[in-house]
Amino acid sequence: MDEVILAIDGGATKTAMTVQKRNGVVLFDGKGEGSNFQTVGADKVKEVLGSLLAEVRKVLPKMKVEIAVFALAGIDSKQDELVVRGIVEEVSRLHGLQASKLIIENDAEATMLGATGGKPGALLISGTGSIAYAHDAKGKIVRSGGWGHRAGDEGSGYWLGREVLRAIFRMEDGRGPETTLKREVLQELELDSVQALAGWLFASTYSVDNVASLSRVLSTCAEKGDGVAIGIMEEAADELALLVGAVLRKCELENVESDIYLNGGALINSEMLVNGLRNHVKTEFPLCQLITSTKSPIESIVARGWLELSG
Amino acid sequence: MDEVILAIDGGATKTAMTVQKRNGVVLFDGKGEGSNFQTVGADKVKEVLGSLLAEVRKVLPKMKVEIAVFALAGIDSKQDELVVRGIVEEVSRLHGLQASKLIIENDAEATMLGATGGKPGALLISGTGSIAYAHDAKGKIVRSGGWGHRAGDEGSGYWLGREVLRAIFRMEDGRGPETTLKREVLQELELDSVQALAGWLFASTYSVDNVASLSRVLSTCAEKGDGVAIGIMEEAADELALLVGAVLRKCELENVESDIYLNGGALINSEMLVNGLRNHVKTEFPLCQLITSTKSPIESIVARGWLELSG
Repeated sequence: MDEVILAIDGGATKTAMTVQKRNGVVLFDGKGEGSNFQTVGADKVKEVLGSLLAEVRKVLPKMKVEIAVFALAGIDSKQDELVVRGIVEEVSRLHGLQASKLIIENDAEATMLGATGGKPGALLISGTGSIAYAHDAKGKIVRSGGWGHRAGDEGSGYWLGREVLRAIFRMEDGRGPETTLKREVLQELELDSVQALAGWLFASTYSVDNVASLSRVLSTCAEKGDGVAIGIMEEAADELALLVGAVLRKCELENVESDIYLNGGALINSEMLVNGLRNHVKTEFPLCQLITSTKSPIESIVARGWLELSG
Repeated sequence: MDEVILAIDGGATKTAMTVQKRNGVVLFDGKGEGSNFQTVGADKVKEVLGSLLAEVRKVLPKMKVEIAVFALAGIDSKQDELVVRGIVEEVSRLHGLQASKLIIENDAEATMLGATGGKPGALLISGTGSIAYAHDAKGKIVRSGGWGHRAGDEGSGYWLGREVLRAIFRMEDGRGPETTLKREVLQELELDSVQALAGWLFASTYSVDNVASLSRVLSTCAEKGDGVAIGIMEEAADELALLVGAVLRKCELENVESDIYLNGGALINSEMLVNGLRNHVKTEFPLCQLITSTKSPIESIVARGWLELSG
């Protein structure tokens, strides 16, 4: 009988689960709410994973798989891993899931290991937040960034959106140069003044994601040649280069042929940002190559699982 | 009979009220909770002001004053002023307060007008937040900054604290230089790792004020010669110079002999920050002079009231 893998990509706001045969035939594909135990709580994680496993039973009555990969956001320490292991074991028992091999790890680490296919390399993510991982294929995995929006996440969508707002306030005060960002952001948010924009930023509807969404307006203005917008993009590229450079150095990959996988909406949707980053990498890490992966994270997590079996 | 003034300095977290004779004799001094209607709500403002006015009645049974100055935070537009006027009139009626003249204005504007004694000048505040005001003594009052911590308040206590945290995260990642800030901040907060510091930043006890309080550790490290700490101080001085420069230019005071009053804990408690700012001002606005006022804001607000009577 074919080997079967069960893989989970659990993020802060959504969870994807897939069950596939070794030959790529998909037996089950499902989606649920977020399963980062640090933000949604252990009970919610049990509910989300449990409900997906109950669905799996319909196509896999014996609930036997060669490998199960639980790649979940929120696993940032050994202690976190212990907590999540407890959750996973409880839910698996409840639904009769039997896995010959079980992997429980941070979602981004699992994605990186799968994307790089067992070779040394890095993963740079700039979505709402920003973080970089690298591994040396000898078991060493390092991280940089990912400290959250309050004092980190440089070069992320949130960071870009905040810089957009700062530029508008500085222009309004006469502390900074003129920029089309003011007109474009007010139009996008259907607001009639910078004072109203300040109100928007402190309204009850405020969210980090709302700020991050302004990075789209930034891309448009930068592409049309707005100097302030281009400056913010360049600074973001500098920050992301610093982020990925730190992990490459920690894994001694500066002068090793290796791939840097890019992910996250803020990066993927901005050609200007990717080009800025490429210039940095060409100069500082000439043997490294940027790869804008077309694989979804869960596909990389599946690849990571199969690697474990063949390794 | 001596003329009598009633003056209120209403901030976000506390409200001071004083009643004084023209000769400086204090008839009443009282303190209450915050009275920024935008943050505490209209009912709370009525309660705070009402309870202070009830106290005043004990020393001033007839509740008659020549001038009453309600200098309250949260008055940022004509619309705000109308709302606050409604509140003040209701509370005054309820407690029988009669004022021959009534001033209702933004607390910082009133402080600036009083501190500068009717001459053109500016007020630069760096406390938890940062803001600058200037006036040309002909009725023009301008503002710069004060957009709040999420995308503004450059050079403020909050901004300094956030830069401290950023520097620690960058050092931890190998993205930024070594700094004694890491050791000193962990010791100050009684935390054992940078991971724990990241947890502190997202704990339920998080507050903008807590972040701002790290500016004290920054001062200490900068004075001991830490390069990263000194760099943050210099950047803050640049930002504050930009802030006050914007209002001086808008009032055409760049080349006019005028005073710049400094206020707020982050500025007043850091000699290094004041010196950095002084260097900027000397170069860019040689006729302007920095004054670290020893007056409390309410004293300036009292002065502002008497100016109105003599003007």
